[in-house]
Amino acid sequence: MRNSFGHIFRLTSFGESHGAGIGGVIDGMPAGIEVDTDFIQAELNRRRPGQSRLTTARQEADEVELLSGIFEGRTTGQPIGFLVRNADQRSSDYEEMRHVFRPSHADFTYQTKYGLRDHRGGGRSSARETISRVVAGAFAKLALRQLDITIVAYTQRVGDILLPGTYEDYDLDLAEQNDVRCPDSATAERMARLISEVKAEGDTIGGVIGCVVRGCPTGLGEPCFGKLQAELAHAMLSINAAKGFDYGMGFDGLGQRGSEQNDLFIPDEDGGITTRTNRSGGIQGGLSNGQDIYFRVAFKPVATLLREQSTVTDEGEPFLLKARGRHDACVLPRAVPVVEAMAAIVVLDQYLLNKTVHL
Amino acid sequence: MRNSFGHIFRLTSFGESHGAGIGGVIDGMPAGIEVDTDFIQAELNRRRPGQSRLTTARQEADEVELLSGIFEGRTTGQPIGFLVRNADQRSSDYEEMRHVFRPSHADFTYQTKYGLRDHRGGGRSSARETISRVVAGAFAKLALRQLDITIVAYTQRVGDILLPGTYEDYDLDLAEQNDVRCPDSATAERMARLISEVKAEGDTIGGVIGCVVRGCPTGLGEPCFGKLQAELAHAMLSINAAKGFDYGMGFDGLGQRGSEQNDLFIPDEDGGITTRTNRSGGIQGGLSNGQDIYFRVAFKPVATLLREQSTVTDEGEPFLLKARGRHDACVLPRAVPVVEAMAAIVVLDQYLLNKTVHL
Amino acid sequence: MRNSFGHIFRLTSFGESHGAGIGGVIDGMPAGIEVDTDFIQAELNRRRPGQSRLTTARQEADEVELLSGIFEGRTTGQPIGFLVRNADQRSSDYEEMRHVFRPSHADFTYQTKYGLRDHRGGGRSSARETISRVVAGAFAKLALRQLDITIVAYTQRVGDILLPGTYEDYDLDLAEQNDVRCPDSATAERMARLISEVKAEGDTIGGVIGCVVRGCPTGLGEPCFGKLQAELAHAMLSINAAKGFDYGMGFDGLGQRGSEQNDLFIPDEDGGITTRTNRSGGIQGGLSNGQDIYFRVAFKPVATLLREQSTVTDEGEPFLLKARGRHDACVLPRAVPVVEAMAAIVVLDQYLLNKTVHL
Amino acid sequence: MRNSFGHIFRLTSFGESHGAGIGGVIDGMPAGIEVDTDFIQAELNRRRPGQSRLTTARQEADEVELLSGIFEGRTTGQPIGFLVRNADQRSSDYEEMRHVFRPSHADFTYQTKYGLRDHRGGGRSSARETISRVVAGAFAKLALRQLDITIVAYTQRVGDILLPGTYEDYDLDLAEQNDVRCPDSATAERMARLISEVKAEGDTIGGVIGCVVRGCPTGLGEPCFGKLQAELAHAMLSINAAKGFDYGMGFDGLGQRGSEQNDLFIPDEDGGITTRTNRSGGIQGGLSNGQDIYFRVAFKPVATLLREQSTVTDEGEPFLLKARGRHDACVLPRAVPVVEAMAAIVVLDQYLLNKTVHL
Repeated sequence: MRNSFGHIFRLTSFGESHGAGIGGVIDGMPAGIEVDTDFIQAELNRRRPGQSRLTTARQEADEVELLSGIFEGRTTGQPIGFLVRNADQRSSDYEEMRHVFRPSHADFTYQTKYGLRDHRGGGRSSARETISRVVAGAFAKLALRQLDITIVAYTQRVGDILLPGTYEDYDLDLAEQNDVRCPDSATAERMARLISEVKAEGDTIGGVIGCVVRGCPTGLGEPCFGKLQAELAHAMLSINAAKGFDYGMGFDGLGQRGSEQNDLFIPDEDGGITTRTNRSGGIQGGLSNGQDIYFRVAFKPVATLLREQSTVTDEGEPFLLKARGRHDACVLPRAVPVVEAMAAIVVLDQYLLNKTVHL
Repeated sequence: MRNSFGHIFRLTSFGESHGAGIGGVIDGMPAGIEVDTDFIQAELNRRRPGQSRLTTARQEADEVELLSGIFEGRTTGQPIGFLVRNADQRSSDYEEMRHVFRPSHADFTYQTKYGLRDHRGGGRSSARETISRVVAGAFAKLALRQLDITIVAYTQRVGDILLPGTYEDYDLDLAEQNDVRCPDSATAERMARLISEVKAEGDTIGGVIGCVVRGCPTGLGEPCFGKLQAELAHAMLSINAAKGFDYGMGFDGLGQRGSEQNDLFIPDEDGGITTRTNRSGGIQGGLSNGQDIYFRVAFKPVATLLREQSTVTDEGEPFLLKARGRHDACVLPRAVPVVEAMAAIVVLDQYLLNKTVHL
Repeated sequence: MRNSFGHIFRLTSFGESHGAGIGGVIDGMPAGIEVDTDFIQAELNRRRPGQSRLTTARQEADEVELLSGIFEGRTTGQPIGFLVRNADQRSSDYEEMRHVFRPSHADFTYQTKYGLRDHRGGGRSSARETISRVVAGAFAKLALRQLDITIVAYTQRVGDILLPGTYEDYDLDLAEQNDVRCPDSATAERMARLISEVKAEGDTIGGVIGCVVRGCPTGLGEPCFGKLQAELAHAMLSINAAKGFDYGMGFDGLGQRGSEQNDLFIPDEDGGITTRTNRSGGIQGGLSNGQDIYFRVAFKPVATLLREQSTVTDEGEPFLLKARGRHDACVLPRAVPVVEAMAAIVVLDQYLLNKTVHL
Repeated sequence: MRNSFGHIFRLTSFGESHGAGIGGVIDGMPAGIEVDTDFIQAELNRRRPGQSRLTTARQEADEVELLSGIFEGRTTGQPIGFLVRNADQRSSDYEEMRHVFRPSHADFTYQTKYGLRDHRGGGRSSARETISRVVAGAFAKLALRQLDITIVAYTQRVGDILLPGTYEDYDLDLAEQNDVRCPDSATAERMARLISEVKAEGDTIGGVIGCVVRGCPTGLGEPCFGKLQAELAHAMLSINAAKGFDYGMGFDGLGQRGSEQNDLFIPDEDGGITTRTNRSGGIQGGLSNGQDIYFRVAFKPVATLLREQSTVTDEGEPFLLKARGRHDACVLPRAVPVVEAMAAIVVLDQYLLNKTVHL
């Protein structure tokens, strides 16, 4: 319940920013799935720092070692242990932080809760922890690929710059073609410029990531506390810096009436049933209805500023903080693969759980 | 995982709209807590239909019978079984719905997932299910009361009508003094008028519920997948009709820079440490920091309209639907106690879990 | 984890001996299974007191009310709430026990753990709690019936009287034809006589229940901590008065060599693979191998004696205890359906979990 | 649920006999505990092969690398990742086993369940998996040490040779002074001789391990499905080759009457309450009562024989098997630290859980 996520397909993770590495155990991976190690590493590369001028300059190779659960290129149904060793560590950068609480970071709350903390680079609270999510998400995607379920996330908003329209107006695969991961190159450029400006000021900026799950069969999710949107919300809000989640029309549709939001059922071309619209976001009564699932995740401007901030030490003494280190001015581009990974974990988990509904 | 929620303090619920009743089991209630049955019933009364002209006209007494786990007025540490019998049932109202899929309801997805469904009043997907949440939440509140932790929710938005400012501008206890449960009587009146108008049109409307947790000690929540905001988001998105969640500045703060959102630490008057502002919403690094926790939940306009809608039968035949029954045009007022209940469950659960961090 | 058992098929129970009743929630029951209410009640009747001269004279009808999860005679996949109201209560019998710790009962440990306890009839520690297990087990059996998996338990030993040979020497269905539930009528008679003698002395006696699962497909169980025998052992040792568990040759085969215990694989008649012997008890490497699963559960002589015993009060004062009430001198006959129920819960649970091993 | 064990203190393990290594994640380790790495390695050394002439001749250093959750010599409350790399692998020894099902091994059931398996050295079903248990158990012991709770296991029986009397007749610490781990040197010698004889015949032999938990406070365990004995039974039966469990008088006391088994309460010297005897084995009503907890675990003669056995291939063809490799003729000596480790995990887990019973 602490460092595990998922019911049937389940990730248990460990690791700190400046310890030996980041890793975990993936339990419940279906047996017999081909393991495409290049794909897994490619997913990690999408997350790693230093991949573009927009992200932190830290260079971390983030190579994953798969330790178990695979035999002759296929998953065996046994738990998959994995480890990504930490490399480019400058622990000394952090020595003066040992007794200082950085504003809006986890330093104060960890110290209060545990009575001690690894202060180097945020320790367990570092976003390096998301490496384990990306690895597990990559395995989930390998399974979902066989079910023709695809998941794409993209940067929808940076600061006040919004991608206009809806996800259906774009070819989402284009998002990977620019550093911001926005499917519209013009908007992406404006976003990139904004991030650069903010970075130059030693400041940071937030935004919104959109995510779409296509090809999801009907019936995933559980009616009561395990509603599909509840599992997704849990997954997304557990990502560092996430501040909000909505799906379907979400917060944006609150000015509408029920008659404007309801999705009317109609016969489809194959003699089945579909809906005329998809304002519900692909989920009704907590269960997927076969339409595209789409949701949004809000990310705050990250707390680490490259400018002076006043704060206090762990003894309550005033302290003037000047973050050094190398940091992202905007996490959105690198959070895109993390959002996808968590979505993949949820969808595969619910897919497997759904198999137990009938004898 | 399906009909249970919580790790240590844990509700398992059952029941359908038109079955024998709604009930559940509360496991992990701390021992020795005085059981104020009047308070529990009062919480249920805040949720029940027919309490005001704004809500559905259905009259349901919703009296709770406590079946176990209590001895001579105190909790024993044993599981608390409870049952609220269904009363005012008009199953025949629903007979013609047996083969019809109501738009944006759970009918279609349940039928697809399970191969059969109790079509009467939505069955398990009915919001009557939230009765069990309110009962468990009332028990949680009884425990939290001893810790001086209080939870208040209120209607913050209906359609396009927003309560201006922040929660700190209002005496939230005033929310209970009007039918809308908005702490500002003038805004409440405007909201009530809007709901009445929408109702008169046979339509529905959504909005936002705000919630504030006060007196929460530092350190509640777990760093990784069990972040306090992730548990809250899961809880809130599992409520019927909820479409979104954010906390702190959330979606609204995305135009700001990090330097505008960071909460600077300062010494407090008692020699401790506090923050100058609370834009974080009382949670940092996934753990409560001792400040007020505040979050918002978006609710869609409910799907049941009292006007004609076109849809299909379970065989794909076109069908013209005219909902009868008695329904809320806006769930916000009655969802307020449900939001509080789920928040209370999460906070107590995390409080108990946090006791296991040290030997 | 406290009052829940099972992963996918999951019972959460509540209730005390002298409270309103005993009940629970069955979550994860597969959808679409026909509910044979007569069978469920018949299973309860096998457990209820007063069914024969060998068991306690208490008369309890133990009628179960099914509260949810069933529609037009079939399970809906939604949680099944149920309640068996307590009837024949003589709470006054227990008033003098309020401050007394009965030897080898739960009085002392409950008081120490919780700081208070319902002293009437043992409260939550009463074997009446097993009612909920029998109800859930009956539902599990209804599902297993469709898979041609059958479970039979029987009294194998009372005091020093053992049923000779192995389970294969008997028609286990004959066990239901006598009060002891031993499949050999001559042995049953000797056991019955011993129980009567012990009862006449105001004393109690223990023994062993054997249980056989037939028709179980290969592959149920999970390799590591979820080995099938581990799940069964957990289930059995959670039954009141159970003191031991073994399977296959168990404790009895310890004088043998590996060469005497190994089950050699041979081709079977249908071109498949079987084993020449089944000393393993139907489980290898923690997984069912398609052979009969057989195991034993040891039950101690129950602690409630109808004779004087010295003890102390909750203030440590000496007290001379003379149990009144009406009690079993030997729990074995009534524990037989409880052992079957718990076995059925485990097997169905593992059957459902096993469906998630492949995509 | 598959490769995780424990509720609050929770081990998730991974690894196969001939893969990269064996490891896991320990979640819920209390914060601030000093980490004695020498002790952890010493516990592993008690389990490792090649430690005496009685055990397998395989030489494996089994050095553990601690990857996270520790800072400046203390636990941080964050998950502890660990890895023991496999070293002395002779995979080629197993090449001819690729299509052969070894009698009473997991080969057949794994193949059936998963459709593929790592045949080298038993893969995940190898007893090397218990390395992760010993590491987690060592951490648990470090915490229990601070609570003055000690756990000692010992070989109580090998084949037909039994240690006479009860555990109270011996200084259990002497068990570590001989290769068999039996606290009586004369009995140990006889056991060692028997094991050598059996080994010379290419055969194997089983036995019983006794275990005693001292200093356990009252109230650990949960009344219903989480009874302390149920958790212990689950833990023990999940160990490779374990076939039975009992506690207190267990299977041996079944000839006695209740009046012979009941433990009468008496005042103790400090004004508290104790029991005159401890036939219950330190647990009453599922909860520890402050007396010594003692239980036994039966282990079968291991299935790997160094003599010819007939079996079949995965295509059902007859095959004459001659195991080579290097194997234990009796697992008891090396299983002693595994039993202790699992007991330590259960006791610490329940200790932490018990903290949540009161506010």
